[in-house]
Amino acid sequence: MENPYAWPQSLYAEWTEALTQSAVNRYPDPHPANLLNHLRDAFQIPAASEILLGNGSDELLQILVTAIARPGAKVLSVAPTFVMYALLARVAGLEYLSVPLTATFDLDEAALLETIRQQQPELIFLAYPNNPTGNRFDDRVVEAVLNLASGLVILDEAYAAFTDHTYLTRLKQFKNLLVLRTLSKMGMAGLRLGYLIGSPVWIEQLDKIRLPYNISVLTQVTAELALRHKAVFDEQVRLIRAERTRLFQALQAIHGVQVFSSEANFLLLRTPKGRALPWHQGLRDCGILIKNLHGSAPSLEDCLRVTVGTPAENDRFISALTAISASIAPDVV
Amino acid sequence: MENPYAWPQSLYAEWTEALTQSAVNRYPDPHPANLLNHLRDAFQIPAASEILLGNGSDELLQILVTAIARPGAKVLSVAPTFVMYALLARVAGLEYLSVPLTATFDLDEAALLETIRQQQPELIFLAYPNNPTGNRFDDRVVEAVLNLASGLVILDEAYAAFTDHTYLTRLKQFKNLLVLRTLSKMGMAGLRLGYLIGSPVWIEQLDKIRLPYNISVLTQVTAELALRHKAVFDEQVRLIRAERTRLFQALQAIHGVQVFSSEANFLLLRTPKGRALPWHQGLRDCGILIKNLHGSAPSLEDCLRVTVGTPAENDRFISALTAISASIAPDVV
Repeated sequence: MENPYAWPQSLYAEWTEALTQSAVNRYPDPHPANLLNHLRDAFQIPAASEILLGNGSDELLQILVTAIARPGAKVLSVAPTFVMYALLARVAGLEYLSVPLTATFDLDEAALLETIRQQQPELIFLAYPNNPTGNRFDDRVVEAVLNLASGLVILDEAYAAFTDHTYLTRLKQFKNLLVLRTLSKMGMAGLRLGYLIGSPVWIEQLDKIRLPYNISVLTQVTAELALRHKAVFDEQVRLIRAERTRLFQALQAIHGVQVFSSEANFLLLRTPKGRALPWHQGLRDCGILIKNLHGSAPSLEDCLRVTVGTPAENDRFISALTAISASIAPDVV
Repeated sequence: MENPYAWPQSLYAEWTEALTQSAVNRYPDPHPANLLNHLRDAFQIPAASEILLGNGSDELLQILVTAIARPGAKVLSVAPTFVMYALLARVAGLEYLSVPLTATFDLDEAALLETIRQQQPELIFLAYPNNPTGNRFDDRVVEAVLNLASGLVILDEAYAAFTDHTYLTRLKQFKNLLVLRTLSKMGMAGLRLGYLIGSPVWIEQLDKIRLPYNISVLTQVTAELALRHKAVFDEQVRLIRAERTRLFQALQAIHGVQVFSSEANFLLLRTPKGRALPWHQGLRDCGILIKNLHGSAPSLEDCLRVTVGTPAENDRFISALTAISASIAPDVV
């Protein structure tokens, strides 16, 4: 799920200069104005919205569930989706409700809206695009959720770099909407920097729960530098998106593979019946590690997920899978 | 409360080499074996104990209160002490009990043990040495607490570098003891690296609550390097301890100042009645920021806290305070 491109060498000199100038012996700035302004500029964050920084978006999810934690409070999402929603809700002692997606991984509008009406969840998480399926939910249904929900709705845009769609521009329209982002998928997973965007009314309350020194000096300095050179990372993202198209087409050409269209930096694919595990193992034997999803949810039967890599990595994957699919065919096992 | 010495220039070349070699685009190792081994060696962590890493010790405190959070659960500490204990307990919805220290900032043995007997807290925090008072609690009373408590007892040794005493060597003896440490006070506050040490039985349970990628690649790489060169930081600590003695003696020589002995990197002092605020402001006017504690707790009336700085910083502070104490004397205001 990571960007395959290492930290750009062209930034080394400026990066190490910035780091050695930083005050590693001092506590980090709890409200780093420069970094926040760079985020605003880089991602066109509306002036009327506030930003909350987290030690990865994981910490922001944790802050959200902590904020609503009281006896009887409920968190709602869909299945399959990002596993941290359920995990963090349960650690916080909350009830976690999960509405299954349709067979094509779309939102089940009727079931979702009915559950919201009946259960009145305090918090709704929608990954947009969704993980591990890669598709982006129908905006008509997302809007119906936003209109119906009395609690907060979090659009988790972790994969924002790989789609042209966002709810950042809709924050003004929906008062109960917060947008969650991260730098992880655009080449900085090692930094741990997530950001939550929304109305100052919400962000100020959530900020009271945040640990004041949650973003290290090193991450602040490095993220600021990366955002000043965002074009370098944009180019990596452009390459990944182009490779995603190429990988999709190559997978479609493999006999027996069903590949799902994706607006993230990974592709979901379905093998012939019963082949997910042997194919996964076959790839492993070739030194290629992808994610087996078979067994994780009924709708993900026979499914694997592959992250878009460099052109060379994608070539190796396609070659290996082509060979494996021919040798471990459904009829010969 | 920070180490005044900037990141040592002698480490720049090796540090920037290590950083540029690190995989900033990848998620950090959730269980960094090398870093854990360096911590073990650097701080003589017993082989039978396990280590939990946190984004500063703040995050480890948060994990502890989250772990015990259930209706009716109680957290106990003393007053005055580190403010995060109360704050985090309340955010987690727990009852926070606070036993006042004596007038000399010692543990009130009778009151403390009686409260433990009656209230049966799930979690007890003792800062050792204590913050903001700087003294180290009587081991006889600490041991009585450890023997009596049915819940977990956390010895918060944030200032371990500045004292010769530790409970790390007593972990085997007390099954309900965990020791909390941080790299912040020994020159790395900007890194955000705390560590909790104790029986694998406890650490494994607490690890389930930890966010898996809570320590960034940058912090892992930097902390590992710093621990390989621990002698550099030990020398800074030695200087701070020597300056603490000098500062203590200089403060004792100022008319009207009562200074308390400290095993931390700061000193607590009491001004003549009603002088804490004007002296604090007077120092501020000289460009010297220390902590005013007057008003924060009954026992801290007329108290200020000063962090031990570099020799030059300490000289400036002593000169300024000597002048201020003469000009803003109790009898002339």
